[in-house]
Amino acid sequence: MDDTASQITSDLGEVKTQFFTFADERRPFNFRREQDSFWPVTLAYETYGRLNAGKSNAILLFHALSGSQHAAGINRSVREDIDKRWTEEMHIGWWDEFIGPGKALDTDQYFVICANYLGGCYGSSGPASINPATGQPYAKDFPTVMFSDIVDSQVHLLDHFKIKKLHAVIGGSLGGLCAINFSARYPDRVEAVVSIASGVETSIQQRISNFEQITAIEDDKHYKGGNYYEGHPPNRGLALARMISHKNYISLDAMEHRAKNTVIQPELDKKKWYWIEHKVESYLRKQGLEFVERFDANTYLRIVDAWQKFDLLGDTGASSFVEMFKACSAQRHLVFTITDDDCFSLKQQEQLCSGLQEAGVPFQHVIVHSLKGHDSFLVEPELYTASIAYFLQGSGNRDAAKRAKA
Amino acid sequence: MDDTASQITSDLGEVKTQFFTFADERRPFNFRREQDSFWPVTLAYETYGRLNAGKSNAILLFHALSGSQHAAGINRSVREDIDKRWTEEMHIGWWDEFIGPGKALDTDQYFVICANYLGGCYGSSGPASINPATGQPYAKDFPTVMFSDIVDSQVHLLDHFKIKKLHAVIGGSLGGLCAINFSARYPDRVEAVVSIASGVETSIQQRISNFEQITAIEDDKHYKGGNYYEGHPPNRGLALARMISHKNYISLDAMEHRAKNTVIQPELDKKKWYWIEHKVESYLRKQGLEFVERFDANTYLRIVDAWQKFDLLGDTGASSFVEMFKACSAQRHLVFTITDDDCFSLKQQEQLCSGLQEAGVPFQHVIVHSLKGHDSFLVEPELYTASIAYFLQGSGNRDAAKRAKA
Repeated sequence: MDDTASQITSDLGEVKTQFFTFADERRPFNFRREQDSFWPVTLAYETYGRLNAGKSNAILLFHALSGSQHAAGINRSVREDIDKRWTEEMHIGWWDEFIGPGKALDTDQYFVICANYLGGCYGSSGPASINPATGQPYAKDFPTVMFSDIVDSQVHLLDHFKIKKLHAVIGGSLGGLCAINFSARYPDRVEAVVSIASGVETSIQQRISNFEQITAIEDDKHYKGGNYYEGHPPNRGLALARMISHKNYISLDAMEHRAKNTVIQPELDKKKWYWIEHKVESYLRKQGLEFVERFDANTYLRIVDAWQKFDLLGDTGASSFVEMFKACSAQRHLVFTITDDDCFSLKQQEQLCSGLQEAGVPFQHVIVHSLKGHDSFLVEPELYTASIAYFLQGSGNRDAAKRAKA
Repeated sequence: MDDTASQITSDLGEVKTQFFTFADERRPFNFRREQDSFWPVTLAYETYGRLNAGKSNAILLFHALSGSQHAAGINRSVREDIDKRWTEEMHIGWWDEFIGPGKALDTDQYFVICANYLGGCYGSSGPASINPATGQPYAKDFPTVMFSDIVDSQVHLLDHFKIKKLHAVIGGSLGGLCAINFSARYPDRVEAVVSIASGVETSIQQRISNFEQITAIEDDKHYKGGNYYEGHPPNRGLALARMISHKNYISLDAMEHRAKNTVIQPELDKKKWYWIEHKVESYLRKQGLEFVERFDANTYLRIVDAWQKFDLLGDTGASSFVEMFKACSAQRHLVFTITDDDCFSLKQQEQLCSGLQEAGVPFQHVIVHSLKGHDSFLVEPELYTASIAYFLQGSGNRDAAKRAKA
């Protein structure tokens, strides 16, 4: 273990998660879908680089479904209650190759902030957090979380830093949905928006896959409506949910390539009737079972539920995406599509771009040719770095905007 | 109920399921994957039309995963122990619009036989059948079933009818896999082969979806390794499995069209945290919950397992599909692909056709343009009838074969 751990290196070295608590009894945080107020709200976050004197160089980065605040550098311990889930694979930041001196998010120039989602399980307030009113975890009583709640909570964090306007918001996958939510709901607080493999609506395919996953978790006998913290967690349900989703994250070719030739019936399945005989089944089962070691089922459910309820028009009150994006005309957008993405389709990014275009928002649409599928944005920095770095410099579509106006 | 039932009409009128038992202690039926012998084996079957004196006009029809022996006509009762699963939707034959006087399988000309799969739950020997050695259902002790076992059991039925050579074998989906298995393993016992939306191998997509479904069933707390007949059946697991599979059977457009605008949280889900808000989720949940009323989870598992283990080369000993089909050169094949089929892809039928072509087997490949997806072969007789009727007459690729040899 120590040998492996010591092999991790990062240009940013060791980093620490910090905590920001902002709501209290007098000033509760309002969840969009809940009547009852909820307090206090804590966000776990990390920062990389330095905030300049004008507070004009900040970039807010949103993680994806199963990500965390730990985007870059090495962090071996978050907090005692979190560390049971902070498995070794979490120690290196999930975008370490994208963040650092001279990288896509250049920490010599920018101050990068990444916070764990509200509802998360890596230090931000979530179902596993202790409810001060009862001394027990909130569990099923934790409020329904919408992407707007996640974004709003992070706006509190920006206020804490006295950052009035971000240089950029960035996110991939669900992080991209959050970035677009931020862009549409706080149009004057961000200059540049980078969304990778996301969109403006939940597709029917996503909705169906999410519903299957929700059903798998809630049907686990250990789930108990979410009140499982004193007993056994719903690992079978969460593992199945992860298996169902994982096939959408990496291309089948990449999966066959990654799958080892050894076929293993995991310990949990030793008493099952069905015996795994194919390496891809073995690989998927392993993904599912490893995931439950590092994630909380209640958090998973809440984020997937937020995805089901993703509703930019409802959240902004606009009647169309064009109308919504008209408020964003001072922004610039960079939109990435990943070829062979089985999670977010080209069509979804085209819908986003079409809204931007008709609303007159300058944007670039980059189609990244990857053989890896959706997860490309986590593992192939070489496909994104040039475009992101150039875009963050303010070049590119500023010129395009000028030409468009000429 | 009676009103609805009386509205069912069929050109064939009322039909009855018959039973054929063929193995005993002295002459057990050998399951390919099992050492232990298993006896007796019963097949539930139906026939339509009349077998001619030369016994040359028989067509063997294989049903699909969740089908039954009841392919045509009206049958309101199979046998007392089966009728609890014989819900109203089962009363009309699943291919009633394809079978009858003047239809695709013209009962004025042909004698059509359809038997419930070995391992099935509609009257053929399966996990719910009583084990004479114990007086209890076989349950988990029922042997592993391969498509070759299903085909072999039906060859016993043909022997019973003294049918040496079939005019045709026909099947769609898994029924197509069985038809091709028959064609490859009994090349001299069939003249014409019709396979709809099937192939020669299980695709990775199918394997993954099947594995998810198997996991859903086995993870249900009521499954108990398959020994659940005295208690509550694993309805949650089976319903989730059906939801997972159903999305592959009908196109998303058809699903949105079929889904009623009313969104219902089913009774079983009333205590769940997640609340259904979208009509497609409501539709899928309903499909899953209706299915458990008419199907046995152990049968489902065994058939999906057979699909995972589908191995024509292993079963025939051939080193390639071309070599395998060389034994079939006296046959004629009609291969159907359905556009927008999310279960069996065009690629899979192309692989089949390429094997047939290189082996010199006369064949036709018809691509049916449907907006409905995989289940088209169950609900759109108008797209198949002309091709099937013409092919069964012996026209079409006999001419093509002549031209090829000229």
